[in-house]
Amino acid sequence: MQRKKASMLARFALATVVVVGLVVLRKRKLKRLQARIIYHRDKDLGRLFGMDVGGTLGKLVYLERDAADLGDVHAYMMASTTYGKSANREDGMALQLSTGRIHFLRFETSKLEKVVEFVRHRCFHRHIRTMPCTGGGAFKFSKLFEDNVGITLEKCDELACLIQGLGFVMRHVLDECYTFKNVAMNHQGMGQATKTIVHTPASELYPFLLVNIGSGVSILKVTSETEYTRVSGTSLGGGTYLGLCKLLSKYKSFDEAMDASIVGDSNTVDMTVGDIYGGNYTQFNLSADTLASSFGKMGTKYEPKSGVRDEDVARSLLIMITTNIGQVAYLSAQRSDTQRIYFCGNFLRQNEIASRQLAYAIDYWSKSQMQAQFFHHEGFFGALGALLKHNQDLLAL
Amino acid sequence: MQRKKASMLARFALATVVVVGLVVLRKRKLKRLQARIIYHRDKDLGRLFGMDVGGTLGKLVYLERDAADLGDVHAYMMASTTYGKSANREDGMALQLSTGRIHFLRFETSKLEKVVEFVRHRCFHRHIRTMPCTGGGAFKFSKLFEDNVGITLEKCDELACLIQGLGFVMRHVLDECYTFKNVAMNHQGMGQATKTIVHTPASELYPFLLVNIGSGVSILKVTSETEYTRVSGTSLGGGTYLGLCKLLSKYKSFDEAMDASIVGDSNTVDMTVGDIYGGNYTQFNLSADTLASSFGKMGTKYEPKSGVRDEDVARSLLIMITTNIGQVAYLSAQRSDTQRIYFCGNFLRQNEIASRQLAYAIDYWSKSQMQAQFFHHEGFFGALGALLKHNQDLLAL
Repeated sequence: MQRKKASMLARFALATVVVVGLVVLRKRKLKRLQARIIYHRDKDLGRLFGMDVGGTLGKLVYLERDAADLGDVHAYMMASTTYGKSANREDGMALQLSTGRIHFLRFETSKLEKVVEFVRHRCFHRHIRTMPCTGGGAFKFSKLFEDNVGITLEKCDELACLIQGLGFVMRHVLDECYTFKNVAMNHQGMGQATKTIVHTPASELYPFLLVNIGSGVSILKVTSETEYTRVSGTSLGGGTYLGLCKLLSKYKSFDEAMDASIVGDSNTVDMTVGDIYGGNYTQFNLSADTLASSFGKMGTKYEPKSGVRDEDVARSLLIMITTNIGQVAYLSAQRSDTQRIYFCGNFLRQNEIASRQLAYAIDYWSKSQMQAQFFHHEGFFGALGALLKHNQDLLAL
Repeated sequence: MQRKKASMLARFALATVVVVGLVVLRKRKLKRLQARIIYHRDKDLGRLFGMDVGGTLGKLVYLERDAADLGDVHAYMMASTTYGKSANREDGMALQLSTGRIHFLRFETSKLEKVVEFVRHRCFHRHIRTMPCTGGGAFKFSKLFEDNVGITLEKCDELACLIQGLGFVMRHVLDECYTFKNVAMNHQGMGQATKTIVHTPASELYPFLLVNIGSGVSILKVTSETEYTRVSGTSLGGGTYLGLCKLLSKYKSFDEAMDASIVGDSNTVDMTVGDIYGGNYTQFNLSADTLASSFGKMGTKYEPKSGVRDEDVARSLLIMITTNIGQVAYLSAQRSDTQRIYFCGNFLRQNEIASRQLAYAIDYWSKSQMQAQFFHHEGFFGALGALLKHNQDLLAL
């Protein structure tokens, strides 16, 4: 009995040693494999990518020159337009050029660690050493990429990439830009508007004003594909919209608040010319329904929120922010010798209501003398600019 | 016993009849007196007054040409600088002219009915038939004055009065206007500033930009004492400040919120350049403490209000509103060929913090090329303009 027990223990110990040994060996082998992948890559196809990692969303553009270049990586990307729940490829956006095809992918920044782990697991990094990257994430996730897949993120200037990517798309995609004509906004609903493609010949492109709406707003005067100056900006931007929405309503995310603003009625919150003067203010050609004071009605009531829905607050905030950005942009454009104002930035994602309001604001302030324009490839210019860094031949097309 | 009771009842009835009769007689007499006062006034000294009744405050200016003119009315006004709890005379503001002296009185609009009753009781209206009046109250309280004291309010155009009163004061009071030099505002406290009198010779006065901050903001280009055009405006004004303060904090009045904003710290609420880029944004010369997104920090936190005091919110709102008004005013001034921007309106009452912030904003946006100016007689221009309507001789001084 004693001997039997000892023999079993010995066998168990042996099995354990063997298993642990095998695991260690496998780990070493994998590590060596990873090391071999990382240090002995015979080619670097990182230049076929451009990445832009923002605070919320990340974008990746991939230049397909020859499908064989990236083999299984290419096959994986093309096999589907969705990758898990938080990444997707915008098939309709793909650009066919004479020397290749550019694909556009989007992912949630919060899932980036999982993406990197997936890349490592599939050995997708075996032909990539350096990848051009812009956005705050180029700094923040630099170590994550280096340590896990041995990829060096080549930091590219955010605005330089934005301007170059944007100029590239404007020259190559004839129907890239659109505007809204006959915009009739109201204090409620989506209003009326005719979405119209605007093509500006390359020779007449510059200068133009670019209004980049992120947390804050930067207004740039762009004079060529590589030259731009910051002419103005305002601290009332997307961050103000989201911050005040979170403080004043039940909406916890940008997308929720934007959707709600469509059904809200700002007239329960704002003070109009009619509220103050009892009708039109004819001396200055201000009609009774002209907005006079954003949130003005809230100051005159003892219980300000009674009778006011969260949707109304979201609507009023949207109008306040877009009208103000429109005004500052219009006044800046007047000093910049251009009639064309382009809008970009995260604030325009989710739905059309923000773009329509901006188009209306520019039309209102400029008395229809200026036009707000928007982009179909909105959001991908930074990544595109990063891609172009090592693909200057595309610029010559 | 029965007879005694009957006799007492008869005496009581007689006394009642006598008392009621006396009361009726007195009332009739008073009514006749009032009627005589109203319909048989031998002189109308209403032209010695100018009134401006706004939504919150009312202002009355009184031109003393000869103290005997108004007798006891004059004596009553001069005997004190306070009249009850809600009206007062600004003794330090009085203007001595060669042909008379102008006095400045202020009252709460909500107490106007009591004021009228007091005037009637003292028969102060016996030499006044028509009084020039501007502001929304000229319409709203027209019947109150007519029915109770038989005074007709002569409606005067609000902006015309404002511009004329303002021009008059600017020409006659050498130390009327002041600015703040070396303004260093911070996210907290009153900041540093040197209050400096600015005298502009009458010949160089026009054109200038006038920014009138009420519930909303009107920006006027003033080219003479009677000519002006509305060049711009913004819906982010005093009404927005008060409305959002009431929704977001415990403060229920404008004055409370303004006082609180002095001790608040906006950095707990706003996002700075440093919060986004981790330091200065050298490419565009933006220092780390530059405001990037008003209320921006509120959008990034799960519990936005944790760690944020009501004072901080009041401060952040004040900075948001003043910075934005400063920017729109600066951009408008650039198109109006003037370096001088004057600010007026109810938003500037209570304490200096709003004026300082505006002075800072103009200095910031214009890179010290333009100057924000303020008035010692702030608030009284409308009433003064109404007074001037029938005292054109004063203009010729």
